[in-house]
Amino acid sequence: MEITVLKNVFAKNDNAANENRARFDEKGVTCLNLLGGAGCGKTSVLEAVLPILSKSLRIAVLEGDLATTRDAARIADLGVPVVQLLTDGGCHLNATLVQHGMEKVSLDKLDLLIIENVGNPICPANFDLGEHARVSVLSVTEGADKPAKYPLLFKDMAAVLLTKCDLLPHTNFDMAQAEEDIRRVNPTARVFRTDVKTNSGIQEFADWILSRRSTPQG
Amino acid sequence: MEITVLKNVFAKNDNAANENRARFDEKGVTCLNLLGGAGCGKTSVLEAVLPILSKSLRIAVLEGDLATTRDAARIADLGVPVVQLLTDGGCHLNATLVQHGMEKVSLDKLDLLIIENVGNPICPANFDLGEHARVSVLSVTEGADKPAKYPLLFKDMAAVLLTKCDLLPHTNFDMAQAEEDIRRVNPTARVFRTDVKTNSGIQEFADWILSRRSTPQG
Repeated sequence: MEITVLKNVFAKNDNAANENRARFDEKGVTCLNLLGGAGCGKTSVLEAVLPILSKSLRIAVLEGDLATTRDAARIADLGVPVVQLLTDGGCHLNATLVQHGMEKVSLDKLDLLIIENVGNPICPANFDLGEHARVSVLSVTEGADKPAKYPLLFKDMAAVLLTKCDLLPHTNFDMAQAEEDIRRVNPTARVFRTDVKTNSGIQEFADWILSRRSTPQG
Repeated sequence: MEITVLKNVFAKNDNAANENRARFDEKGVTCLNLLGGAGCGKTSVLEAVLPILSKSLRIAVLEGDLATTRDAARIADLGVPVVQLLTDGGCHLNATLVQHGMEKVSLDKLDLLIIENVGNPICPANFDLGEHARVSVLSVTEGADKPAKYPLLFKDMAAVLLTKCDLLPHTNFDMAQAEEDIRRVNPTARVFRTDVKTNSGIQEFADWILSRRSTPQG
């Protein structure tokens, strides 16, 4: 009985996700789903990359959180339209919640929609939101063992951002091991080493998004 | 229908948790449940505190992970009996899985059982494992906004460990704000500032566990 219900939940989500994707394609909007644990630097990366992308793209952000509108306020401060998706304690975004957010932005006037998922290294990866590509974020302060221990967070990603690299000298993070473990579950992901203190890797990540935007979507 | 099934899941878990707690009390074992996000430093704190505690207590560890036995191997290296609880992708431990782990350790010969939960700042807090007390872990590299954004991770905790404090000078972590937000959801939790490079706060945390052990359990 439990399994049946879970199947229903996933089927319902997949249907909504496919609807979302069809709508993005119809409107010519590229959609990215940004995933990662709490405090891995998702919002900080957006704060760094959005000013670059905003020069040539019309962008909106859907901001997933369990509680508070703090992250949405940080995005709004950049002048980028943002809709807060509060899960009220829920551990992931689902495609239906994203649909509610899509109603609040004008897809006709957008090129790029970025969804920042709830800070959780596990559950969000199980839910298709209708995105064209997923990007996962791992901070080097979390440890190099995480790609092996949380393979789902790296498996279906178009790109992986290794953040807070300015702190590398103060950690025992083994970059070679981490990148090898990422390659093992995902040989094709682009891996970016970034930090938002010196903006290292941020222009490269922006260029990658821009190149995806100019490539026809699947 | 979904809600009914979820109620059944929680009721079943609560029953198993109460059985676990009764069994711990019967055997005179104190049980702690250690929670926190991926890479917040749960295993590193155990590596630091177990050698101190082992001088006066007989200890075993149940080690929760989605994949790999890396953390269990780190605990075994200390000579502490450890049982790996693999969730096979599941985002939290439940009381039934803990029961399976309890069968593998000799409760008759234990004073303290520490359960290290799956690295996830959200879901594990919803599942009672039968523990006597919960301890949550937040690394300062995750950011001072986390107690406000993830209140469940701080609400029912007997203690909160703020880890990686050696990295404080390299972060913008606002300690006063974080501690104020923790107090708001949990006025009584003991808050420890720790790091495992200089072992700051580790003896204090060990003393706190020892003092709980000598106090009759609820």
